[in-house]
Amino acid sequence: MRLKAILLIGDGMADRPLKELNWKTPLEVAKKPSLNKVAKNGICGIIDPIAPGIPPGSDTATLALLGYDALKVYSGRGSLEALGCGMELLPGDVAFRCNFATVDENMVVLDRRAGRIENEDAVKLTESLQKIELNKSLGAEFFLKNTVQHRAVLLVRGSKLSANVSNSDPLKVGKKVSEVKPLSNSLAAKRTAKILNELMLKFHEVLKKHPVNQERVKRGLLPANVLLFRGAGTVPVMKSLWELYGVNATCVAAMPLIRGTCKAAGMKLVDVKGATGTPQTDFSAKAKAAVQALEDSDLVLLHVKATDAASHDGIFKQKIELIEKIDGMVNHILGKIDIENTYLAITADHTTSSFTKSHEGDPVPVAIAGPYVRSDDVEEFSERACAKGGLHRIRGMDLMPILMNLIGKARRFGA
Amino acid sequence: MRLKAILLIGDGMADRPLKELNWKTPLEVAKKPSLNKVAKNGICGIIDPIAPGIPPGSDTATLALLGYDALKVYSGRGSLEALGCGMELLPGDVAFRCNFATVDENMVVLDRRAGRIENEDAVKLTESLQKIELNKSLGAEFFLKNTVQHRAVLLVRGSKLSANVSNSDPLKVGKKVSEVKPLSNSLAAKRTAKILNELMLKFHEVLKKHPVNQERVKRGLLPANVLLFRGAGTVPVMKSLWELYGVNATCVAAMPLIRGTCKAAGMKLVDVKGATGTPQTDFSAKAKAAVQALEDSDLVLLHVKATDAASHDGIFKQKIELIEKIDGMVNHILGKIDIENTYLAITADHTTSSFTKSHEGDPVPVAIAGPYVRSDDVEEFSERACAKGGLHRIRGMDLMPILMNLIGKARRFGA
Repeated sequence: MRLKAILLIGDGMADRPLKELNWKTPLEVAKKPSLNKVAKNGICGIIDPIAPGIPPGSDTATLALLGYDALKVYSGRGSLEALGCGMELLPGDVAFRCNFATVDENMVVLDRRAGRIENEDAVKLTESLQKIELNKSLGAEFFLKNTVQHRAVLLVRGSKLSANVSNSDPLKVGKKVSEVKPLSNSLAAKRTAKILNELMLKFHEVLKKHPVNQERVKRGLLPANVLLFRGAGTVPVMKSLWELYGVNATCVAAMPLIRGTCKAAGMKLVDVKGATGTPQTDFSAKAKAAVQALEDSDLVLLHVKATDAASHDGIFKQKIELIEKIDGMVNHILGKIDIENTYLAITADHTTSSFTKSHEGDPVPVAIAGPYVRSDDVEEFSERACAKGGLHRIRGMDLMPILMNLIGKARRFGA
Repeated sequence: MRLKAILLIGDGMADRPLKELNWKTPLEVAKKPSLNKVAKNGICGIIDPIAPGIPPGSDTATLALLGYDALKVYSGRGSLEALGCGMELLPGDVAFRCNFATVDENMVVLDRRAGRIENEDAVKLTESLQKIELNKSLGAEFFLKNTVQHRAVLLVRGSKLSANVSNSDPLKVGKKVSEVKPLSNSLAAKRTAKILNELMLKFHEVLKKHPVNQERVKRGLLPANVLLFRGAGTVPVMKSLWELYGVNATCVAAMPLIRGTCKAAGMKLVDVKGATGTPQTDFSAKAKAAVQALEDSDLVLLHVKATDAASHDGIFKQKIELIEKIDGMVNHILGKIDIENTYLAITADHTTSSFTKSHEGDPVPVAIAGPYVRSDDVEEFSERACAKGGLHRIRGMDLMPILMNLIGKARRFGA
């Protein structure tokens, strides 16, 4: 009998107790009969995605939950974003996560998302920017791709490049766009910084007089007159889940960063109509896609971004509603899978506090239901209830070996 | 007052819940008043022998329970088997675990154990094989020793040898004996493979026309006409428990693999009449031997193999009976030791599922009773009851420092 597993990750779904919720967390307050059913039938615990007290990014946390030592394999966000939006990434390339943004005449950032510019406008701007030619003496070329709204990825290719450079994105409104600086004395870092600074200026020249932006200003919208760079990354060097465990693995996720992380792990990427990575995403379509992917996969990762977005905005009421929608996904999945041969694991990639509006280093809950698990006394899926479970406190990178062990794909060490 | 400890390891004693047992484990179902007494009086927890989800061998797990980092010190099964059956193992030697087996004229394996050949026959065959001379140009010699039934150990000695070679044992009936292949490009690996392949053929030539085998065929028994090699290993480089903690340690075990592991840790080996490593072993004699060994030892490891064998055969009813026999050993020990100065720790080296019939990566229970331990609320020795104990979830290699700390043999780190 072939055993299979679905791993559902609610992005930033874990939280801290909130005063407004009578010192309960959104997970504790939400109505979640299906999530509770998984906790009740399964074995529960808490996970430090990276290590106790370390706030992870969604990229490093997802790497860890896929069983990788993120401290060793993580090579920057930009390269995972590039992989996730379908760009070809070669050894030696350096990729950046970019934002179309609005600056004033002194290059001070007015809006880091250019009024959350629509895809249609971003496409036209990107087409124009891609026509720019870099100074030939630099011996490098670039590829630019816009993804969703203000988001884009820049890939630089050439000899002697380095990801060891600073961001031009100041990450805050009211600050000036930063010069990209080499973070080491290497020639490659200096060269890369020079290329990025040239691109920043040339992009700005084209953007500030671009018809799309003139049109936006007329319509009372913010012009996307600069492209901010951050998260320089190189191609991650990782063995695939197939090489490590001999499993066919599929990713159901909308966000390029998560898709890229899964692609780096050699997973198949599924496109789901209506999956947007926003609170308006089609939860039902994603749940169905995950169940369908199980047909030819041993492992399916199902990722929901919306809970993190609500936490970053501090809208804890929306977060509760979104958790209840995730509960609906779990209800659908439980109704479709064969409980004789399928495991369902549920967790979050990190805690995002609806109070601090940031990723935090608190652990996240986990529950694993399926045949032959040593079920425990936990009856509720939440941060504090799961902390009393039979899995105790594990690291993010322990979860995948535990799932692989359950589906009979772990490799024995010793005789 | 000199403090002492007995560590009782039930091989593969931990299990997963079984449908036939109403989703309880053999440990949960067995009548085990003495094991429960240890849990009740002591402090309990669960152990990942190597790491969460990793199925260990008995060799790597025992190394870990003795406090070693198996990922660093494990150098293959063959060398531990060689040490365990009293062979002299020098740096540079490569040793293999061997099986006398039966093949057809096309070298296809018909029985991996030659009908579980009796010791008397195996001794005679081994004597003849030892007389074979290796081609002098190979510059190597070999030593062969049969142990119990079909089991034997082959040790190859010479310059430039390597354990980085494949098995000739195909591990399955119906498959052809494999050629030994070098697993690296090194000259040593190539040389070693060549020597092993020559030995395989020469052994086969002698065995297939050996009078013992002709006699076996006449008696309707399977001939032992081939020797299968697996688990190449070199001498493990380890500090002894004496060097590490200043303890005299003794091993009461029947299996050469466990005896070898303990010998590598510098432990004294005790021979117990009637200890066979099978379900018919003399449980009482082993318990008595462990108590007696305490007289001049600080630490006694008492290993029982039978529970693992029953699990591999999927005979969970026998496993329950064997656990009850282990309970009888614990009863004997509790009646003999001085509770003022003696600790009793009980655990398993790994989970062996009576359903999958394989080693699994699920954690194992542990209980430690003795003076001044911080006893907890656990009242039962089982996988799930112990998971609620005061030791929480620890790694295999943490257990020995914990025991050494209790008997006053831990070394302080810092001022």
